[in-house]
Amino acid sequence: MTDCLFCKIINGEIPCYKIYEDEHTFVFLDIGPVSKGHSLIVPKVHAQAMQEGSLDEALSIMKTVYTIAPVILKALGASGYNLGMNHGLSGGQDIFHTHLHFMPRYDGVPRKFEKQKVEKEELEKIAELIREAF
Amino acid sequence: MTDCLFCKIINGEIPCYKIYEDEHTFVFLDIGPVSKGHSLIVPKVHAQAMQEGSLDEALSIMKTVYTIAPVILKALGASGYNLGMNHGLSGGQDIFHTHLHFMPRYDGVPRKFEKQKVEKEELEKIAELIREAF
Repeated sequence: MTDCLFCKIINGEIPCYKIYEDEHTFVFLDIGPVSKGHSLIVPKVHAQAMQEGSLDEALSIMKTVYTIAPVILKALGASGYNLGMNHGLSGGQDIFHTHLHFMPRYDGVPRKFEKQKVEKEELEKIAELIREAF
Repeated sequence: MTDCLFCKIINGEIPCYKIYEDEHTFVFLDIGPVSKGHSLIVPKVHAQAMQEGSLDEALSIMKTVYTIAPVILKALGASGYNLGMNHGLSGGQDIFHTHLHFMPRYDGVPRKFEKQKVEKEELEKIAELIREAF
């Protein structure tokens, strides 16, 4: 979709810290992460929200979680994770292209949900660590 | 698993406010809901967390989300939802049987994540409204 931020990221029109891609999904770091390695899993086909996309696209999101979770945890030394999806304005959705938040969690690190400011160099380093682990 | 709360709920040993069931998943109201209709989607086969279960079980969770979301939203007059999963102690997991939180959201109702105390009669009424909508 022409005016969609995530479509532009998927198409390479806007740069991102990409960490994974398969036939149906695209994964990149959230630039306002709530934890180290906070990533967004995005179906490649545009749909405003999961219910507006196909069942296959919804399932492809979970398949990607299942694939990338152990890799990200190992790459970053995380011991757990949170998944989150916001659907609709009342659900706090901000970008209207389906996306699932994958938030690694670490022993001894408080589980916060506030966005943090992280330097570009640090984000690139994290993305590289994850990419190398695949 | 003998000592698992959710296995006991699935097996009917412990009562619950059941709203949906299919071959692979079981869905019931959270008794400490963060929103009206807050439900837990649970695979029937015991696994401590999603990564310890099979890919098919992980996908079955998302299939159930896709199936029940429009029904619950219509039944309760919700306009959006949040999905959440806590994996591992550092991820805030409390019951060690895979479960996904489905939290309906409503226009004009602040999006809170604190558990609320709700009377049994109200929970039964909500479960009944949802069950009738299928």
